[in-house]
Amino acid sequence: MTTLRPADAGDSESILLLTRSEPLFTPEEVETVEELLTDYLTSPDHNGYSFLVAEDGGRLLGFACFGPRPLTKGTFDLYWLCVASSARRQGVGRALVTRAEDEVRKQRGRLMVIETSGRPEYSATRAFYERLGYTMAAAVPEFYGPGDDLILYTRKVTP
Amino acid sequence: MTTLRPADAGDSESILLLTRSEPLFTPEEVETVEELLTDYLTSPDHNGYSFLVAEDGGRLLGFACFGPRPLTKGTFDLYWLCVASSARRQGVGRALVTRAEDEVRKQRGRLMVIETSGRPEYSATRAFYERLGYTMAAAVPEFYGPGDDLILYTRKVTP
Repeated sequence: MTTLRPADAGDSESILLLTRSEPLFTPEEVETVEELLTDYLTSPDHNGYSFLVAEDGGRLLGFACFGPRPLTKGTFDLYWLCVASSARRQGVGRALVTRAEDEVRKQRGRLMVIETSGRPEYSATRAFYERLGYTMAAAVPEFYGPGDDLILYTRKVTP
Repeated sequence: MTTLRPADAGDSESILLLTRSEPLFTPEEVETVEELLTDYLTSPDHNGYSFLVAEDGGRLLGFACFGPRPLTKGTFDLYWLCVASSARRQGVGRALVTRAEDEVRKQRGRLMVIETSGRPEYSATRAFYERLGYTMAAAVPEFYGPGDDLILYTRKVTP
């Protein structure tokens, strides 16, 4: 049975292993997840970031990282979402996003923002967010790099 | 005569005074400028940020802050631009943006991004960027807060 809970220090190693095994992530992206995770685990207020994990009998199935967007009122970013390849198509990603939205609502958030890539490798990712009710609010050509557009999704999370 | 140059520790006080006197900036925004300026002045690599100042005979007319956007290839953000109210309509803002673009080009940047607000108070700001050749690439409703849209401008800076 899948359990969702906030990440703790004991999850650190398996979160990093999962991140490093995701072929879509660049080395710079892996490093960013590592930095955010260290911040989350070592700062008393988690530097504003939250990590959630999904696990089954002690095995990490996936994680989500989200937090308030600086200089906004009530806008949160879903910064990272990763599900183990062996655990896909079982609702783990959906459960993580739904739980993150619940947490944002508790923190009086209004809007969840997800920034992802327009590259073909991310088409399944984009379809996934669209199934969850996210709307493409912007597409910025060449934002991430040549031939790599930013696709920005939003979803209202107010009750 | 207006001189443009990288900011140094001697500019710190006048940059902060100018920032605090800008009615469009919220207290949280002023605090963010202070943090970036401290990073810029105290880190050997300026944490990636650059501050430029425009001055005339030792008087600060304005400043710009820009830097690479994390997790992109060659995209830079113009994070902050501020011109003293007494020095407006004299080309100071345009000179700062042009110089920032030159610096980005030297750092092999491709794209300059400017994020600003869709509120009526920012209409002169938006018109200014449009005059400088910036194109509105995205408008995200309610991004900054209720009734406060994100307007994202981009301009290619490749030669």
